[in-house]
Amino acid sequence: MHALIRELFPICRSITGDGVRETLRRLQHVAPIEIHEVETGTPVLDWTVPNEWNVRDAWVKNTAGERVVDFRTNNLHVLNYSAPVHRTVSLAELKEHCFSLPEHPYWVPYRTSYYKEAWGFCLSARQLAALPEGDYEVCVDSTLTAGHLTYGELYLPGRTGEDVLVSAHICHPSLANDNLSGVVVAAYLAALVSKRDRRLGYRFLFVPGTIGSITWLALHQDAVPSIRHGLVLAGVGDAGHVHYKKSRQGSAPVDRAVAHVLRQSGRRHDVAEFSPYGYDERQYCSPGFDLAVGSLSRTPYGKYPEYHTSADTPDFVKPEALADSLSLCADVCAVLEDDRSWLNCNPRGEPQLGRRGLYGAIGGNASAPEMEMALLWVLNLSDGQHTLLDIADRAGLEFGVVAHAARLLAAHDLLDLPEGITP
Amino acid sequence: MHALIRELFPICRSITGDGVRETLRRLQHVAPIEIHEVETGTPVLDWTVPNEWNVRDAWVKNTAGERVVDFRTNNLHVLNYSAPVHRTVSLAELKEHCFSLPEHPYWVPYRTSYYKEAWGFCLSARQLAALPEGDYEVCVDSTLTAGHLTYGELYLPGRTGEDVLVSAHICHPSLANDNLSGVVVAAYLAALVSKRDRRLGYRFLFVPGTIGSITWLALHQDAVPSIRHGLVLAGVGDAGHVHYKKSRQGSAPVDRAVAHVLRQSGRRHDVAEFSPYGYDERQYCSPGFDLAVGSLSRTPYGKYPEYHTSADTPDFVKPEALADSLSLCADVCAVLEDDRSWLNCNPRGEPQLGRRGLYGAIGGNASAPEMEMALLWVLNLSDGQHTLLDIADRAGLEFGVVAHAARLLAAHDLLDLPEGITP
Amino acid sequence: MHALIRELFPICRSITGDGVRETLRRLQHVAPIEIHEVETGTPVLDWTVPNEWNVRDAWVKNTAGERVVDFRTNNLHVLNYSAPVHRTVSLAELKEHCFSLPEHPYWVPYRTSYYKEAWGFCLSARQLAALPEGDYEVCVDSTLTAGHLTYGELYLPGRTGEDVLVSAHICHPSLANDNLSGVVVAAYLAALVSKRDRRLGYRFLFVPGTIGSITWLALHQDAVPSIRHGLVLAGVGDAGHVHYKKSRQGSAPVDRAVAHVLRQSGRRHDVAEFSPYGYDERQYCSPGFDLAVGSLSRTPYGKYPEYHTSADTPDFVKPEALADSLSLCADVCAVLEDDRSWLNCNPRGEPQLGRRGLYGAIGGNASAPEMEMALLWVLNLSDGQHTLLDIADRAGLEFGVVAHAARLLAAHDLLDLPEGITP
Repeated sequence: MHALIRELFPICRSITGDGVRETLRRLQHVAPIEIHEVETGTPVLDWTVPNEWNVRDAWVKNTAGERVVDFRTNNLHVLNYSAPVHRTVSLAELKEHCFSLPEHPYWVPYRTSYYKEAWGFCLSARQLAALPEGDYEVCVDSTLTAGHLTYGELYLPGRTGEDVLVSAHICHPSLANDNLSGVVVAAYLAALVSKRDRRLGYRFLFVPGTIGSITWLALHQDAVPSIRHGLVLAGVGDAGHVHYKKSRQGSAPVDRAVAHVLRQSGRRHDVAEFSPYGYDERQYCSPGFDLAVGSLSRTPYGKYPEYHTSADTPDFVKPEALADSLSLCADVCAVLEDDRSWLNCNPRGEPQLGRRGLYGAIGGNASAPEMEMALLWVLNLSDGQHTLLDIADRAGLEFGVVAHAARLLAAHDLLDLPEGITP
Repeated sequence: MHALIRELFPICRSITGDGVRETLRRLQHVAPIEIHEVETGTPVLDWTVPNEWNVRDAWVKNTAGERVVDFRTNNLHVLNYSAPVHRTVSLAELKEHCFSLPEHPYWVPYRTSYYKEAWGFCLSARQLAALPEGDYEVCVDSTLTAGHLTYGELYLPGRTGEDVLVSAHICHPSLANDNLSGVVVAAYLAALVSKRDRRLGYRFLFVPGTIGSITWLALHQDAVPSIRHGLVLAGVGDAGHVHYKKSRQGSAPVDRAVAHVLRQSGRRHDVAEFSPYGYDERQYCSPGFDLAVGSLSRTPYGKYPEYHTSADTPDFVKPEALADSLSLCADVCAVLEDDRSWLNCNPRGEPQLGRRGLYGAIGGNASAPEMEMALLWVLNLSDGQHTLLDIADRAGLEFGVVAHAARLLAAHDLLDLPEGITP
Repeated sequence: MHALIRELFPICRSITGDGVRETLRRLQHVAPIEIHEVETGTPVLDWTVPNEWNVRDAWVKNTAGERVVDFRTNNLHVLNYSAPVHRTVSLAELKEHCFSLPEHPYWVPYRTSYYKEAWGFCLSARQLAALPEGDYEVCVDSTLTAGHLTYGELYLPGRTGEDVLVSAHICHPSLANDNLSGVVVAAYLAALVSKRDRRLGYRFLFVPGTIGSITWLALHQDAVPSIRHGLVLAGVGDAGHVHYKKSRQGSAPVDRAVAHVLRQSGRRHDVAEFSPYGYDERQYCSPGFDLAVGSLSRTPYGKYPEYHTSADTPDFVKPEALADSLSLCADVCAVLEDDRSWLNCNPRGEPQLGRRGLYGAIGGNASAPEMEMALLWVLNLSDGQHTLLDIADRAGLEFGVVAHAARLLAAHDLLDLPEGITP
C-alpha cells in the first residue's frame, strides 16, 4: 500500500480531470474498479456537474524570467481549479492571489476554488516574504471547460441483497494521508473482500469529494436502499491512533461493530458522535438518505498540522498504520458478515450441552471456559431480539468467539435462523 | 426593580386582604395587570376560598403599658392570619402563642396559620427571653371574615394558541427575596414581553401561594390546556447562583431551554430534578394537570438562614441579581419563541450553500466557522424530528446561532415549516 | 439456622438419592415442605431424569489394608455420582481417577460426574503426594440405578394469583455455604412468610441443581406464568457482603426491590448484571421462560477459595450472615407485597392535607418532615404510571415510609386502587 501511495503521489488530482482518470487506472491493478464518466452540466441533486479542469503548467516569473513559484516542483503551488491566466501583475496584485501559511513558514498550503472562478498560487510564507517589489509574470496553463466528472466503482455482490458501502475521496493532488491513504486502503480492502465468501454485497466508491458522492447518489437512487452499512475512509495512514466518527444514526450496526472491534482489540482509539462536517459521510448521512455510514480516520482532519499542506507527504504515512487500518476494516466487515439474530431451538431451560460434547464432563469447577460462556450466552439471548453483536457486547466476549459458538450450536441443531434469513 | 422592592416591602401581605390589593395596584405601574376577586366560600378543587384577613395593629403591652411587641415596627410580629384577640394573659400563656428562632436570637421568624384559627406573635428569641414574669395585654386588631381572595393576571396573546405561564406568589408580608423578588421580576418580564413580537402567548399570574394557584386552576380549566411552558419565579434576588428545578415532566422544552441557556451562558448554576415540595409548581405539576412548569430561584428556599425571617430585607436582595434573573427569563423566552422543527427542502445531499453565498468560496481550511457549522447542523437535523433546541444541544452551539442559521436557510428557501405550523 | 446447618452438614447429598430425602425430611421441621419423587427416565425438557445414586462407603486401601482415602471421614472424598468399583490398581492408574487442589494442599476438592459414568476420588494434594508406589484396593460401594429424583416444594397461596419463586439447590454433600446456607435461609423464609398475610403467593423449591429446576419447570409449565418475581438463594452464609445478580430482564420489580432495600439499608453490597452462568437462575431465566428471577449470594461462587472444597465447613458460615440474609429476603418480600400503582383521587392540585390532620398547621418552616414529603410524593406520582417502588426510588425515600404514606392517604379516601387490582 505504501509503495502505491508513492506511485500515486505526484499525480495532480482534482474533482475532475485526467489526474483522477490516471489514478483510477493504476488502482485497477489492485482491484477491478470500473471507471465512470458523467458529463459537465448534468444536474445532480441540488448541484450541477462542473466544467472539467486540467492543468499542464503554472508559474510565477520574476523580471529576470526565473520561476519563483513553479507547479513542476509541487502541484500544490497552483490554486486547485485555478482558471487560466497569463499576464504581468504588480507584487501587490499578485499577493491578492497568493495563499500561504504564516504559522508554518516552510510549508505550501493546499487551497481550492471549485465553484467560484478564480486564479491563484499557493506558496510558503518564506517564499512569499522573499518576493521583492516589482512586476511578475503569472501563468496558469489550465483548461476549465465542458468535459466530465470521473469516478471509480466496484460492486461485489453478496447473497442477501444488503450492501456495505466503502467510500474514499480521490480528488486531492500531492497529499498523501489525506487522501491517498484512504484510496489505497479501500482498494486493498476491495481486493481482500473480492476473494471471500460474502453474505453482504460491497460497493466501493472512489469519488471526488462532495460533488462525487452527490453525483453517485443522484444517479443511483435505486441502489441506495440496499446500503445497510458503510464506511468513509480518509486519513487512515498517519501514526496516530484510530478515530471513528459514528453515523448520523448513532447506534447502527456499523457503529457498534467498529466500536466492538476497537474495544476488543485493545487498540488505543476514540469514538466520536456524528457531526455534519467532514468527508462524504456529509452526503450519505444527509437526512433524505440517512445511511448508516461512519467515518474512519486515524488523527482526524485538521487535527494535525501537516493536514492540507505540503508536509503531508508519503513519509508522513506509515506502512504499519496502513496495515492496521486495513486489518481493522477487514475485522469490521467480518463482524457485519456474521452478525445476525439466531433462534434457540430449545428455549425452555438449557439444552444438555454435555451430552453433545459441548460442555466439560467433570463438574464443580469455579468458572467456565470462555467458549462454554459463549455457548451459554448465545443460547440465552438467541430469542430473535438479539444479534450476535448484541450478545458479544453484553457478554463482554470477542465477536469471533460468539460467532464460533453460534456455528457450533447451529451444527448441533440447537440454533436456527429465523425464516427468510439468508444463511 | 430594586426600588420597587423597597416600595412594596412595608406592605403587610397575606393570602387575602388589602395588602395584596395594594401591591397589585402598584405593579400596574409596571405592566397592565388585571386585579381579580374571588368570594370567600367559593369551592376551588379540593379547597374553599377562606375568609379574608386584614390587620390594622397588633401588640403586646407590659404592665407599664409599653408595647414590648409592636406590629407597627415590623409586620412579621403578628402571626400571619392571626384571629383577633384582646385580653390580658400571664407570661406562661403568652409564650404558648409566641414563635421565635433560638438559633438566630436577633431575628423575627415568619409564621402563618391560614387554615387553623389561632392567634399569636413572632418575636426574636432575645425579645422573648427578656420578658419578665407578669401579666401582658395582648391585642391583634384584625378581621377574619367573609370577603375575597385577590390575585393579579396579565395575558399577552400570541399567534400560536400556545402559552407560557409565569407565576409568582404574592402573599408574603415584609420579606424581600421571598417573595418580592419573584413578583418584581415577573412584572418587569411582563413589561418586556408585552413589547415584543410573540408567537407564544404569555400568562402572568400574581397569586397567593397554594390557594391562589389552586383558585386560578379551578376557575380557568379551559385555559390550562394551552399552557405549554411555564416558570414559577421565587427567591430570584439574592446573591447566590441560579437554581432551576425541573418540571414534573423532566425534559419538557422549558426544562431543556433553561438548562441550555444556563449552560451556554457560562453562569454558575444548578439544575435539580422535580420534587413535589416548593412553590406553586406543586399545583401546576399535580398529576391531573402535569404542566411543564419549572421553578426558578437563586439560593433555594430554606437553604439560606435569612429565609422566612426578618433578615430577608431589601438589602438582602441585590440589584444585579434581579437583573441577571430577568435577563435569564428573557433569554429562556427567546428560546421558547424560536424553538420549532423545520423541514430541510433539499434533504438528499447537502444543498450547494456556496452558490447562495452561505459558504466560504476558498476550500481546504481545517475547520468551518461557527455559522457554517450551524447551517450544516440545521440542514442535517431538520427532518421534522428535531427542533432547533434539539439541534443546538446536539451541536453544542448556542441556540441563537442555530436560530439565526435557520432564518438564513429559510430566507433562501432551503428550510420550510411543516404544514400547519404558525410562522 | 446455624444449628440446622451443623445438623445437615454430614449428610451425603447429590442430585438424587437418600441424602436429599433425608435433608428434606429434616427441613419439614421448619416448614411444611412436600417431598416429590420423579422417576428415572422421565423426559424433562431437553434432559432425562438420570439414574438414582446412593453410596454407602468408599475407600482406597494400601497394601497394608489401611484406608488411605476414606469416605467415612468426609463424603467429599468420593467423586459425586461415582459408579461402583472394587478392584486393585497401580498408583498410576489410581491417579487418573483422583482430583486434588495443588494450590490448597490440605483441602479436598468437590467434584462431580453426573452425566458421564466414571469412578473417582477427591483428596488433598498432600494426601495424594504421600501415596507411595504400589497397588491399591479401590472401592466405591455405590448404586447407580433406576430410581427417582427427589425435590421439595412448598406453595403458600396469596390473594392475587401472582407468585414469588424462592429456589435453593439441595444437591451438595458436606459443603456448608454452598449450599446449605441457601437451603436453610429458604426454609426459614418459608416459615416466616407462612405466618403473614399475603397478597402474593410464594413457591419455595428445594431442588437438585440444574436437573432439579429443569424437572420442576418441565412438569409444572402451567404454574410458570404466575411467577412474577423470584430469587435463587445460594452462598448466603459467609462473612462477605451481599451480592445480587439481576434477572435476565434486568429491571424487573424484584431487581429494583433488592437494589432498593440494599441501598436504603446502608449495607455494603454489589449489584451485578445478569449472566447465564451460575445457579438455577440459568434455567428460570432461559429465553423460553425469561422469569424475573435474580440470584442472591454473599461472596459470589468461585470468588472465595473455600468454594467447592472441604474448607467450606459450618465454621465458614456465620450465624449473623445467615440472619442478615434472611432479613434481607424478608424485606424484599415486604416491598414486593406492597408495591403497586395507586390512583390519586384528587389529581388536580394538592388535596388539602391540613384539613385532614395530615399536614402541620403552622406554615413558614423551611422543610417538610419525611412523612409529609412521602405524602406529597405519593400524591404527585400516583397517576397509574408509577408504583410505590418507583415513587420511593424517585423520592429517595425508604419504601416503608412511602407505603405507610399510601396507607394513610387511602384511609382518607385520597388514594384508590385501579379497577381490578387486589387489595
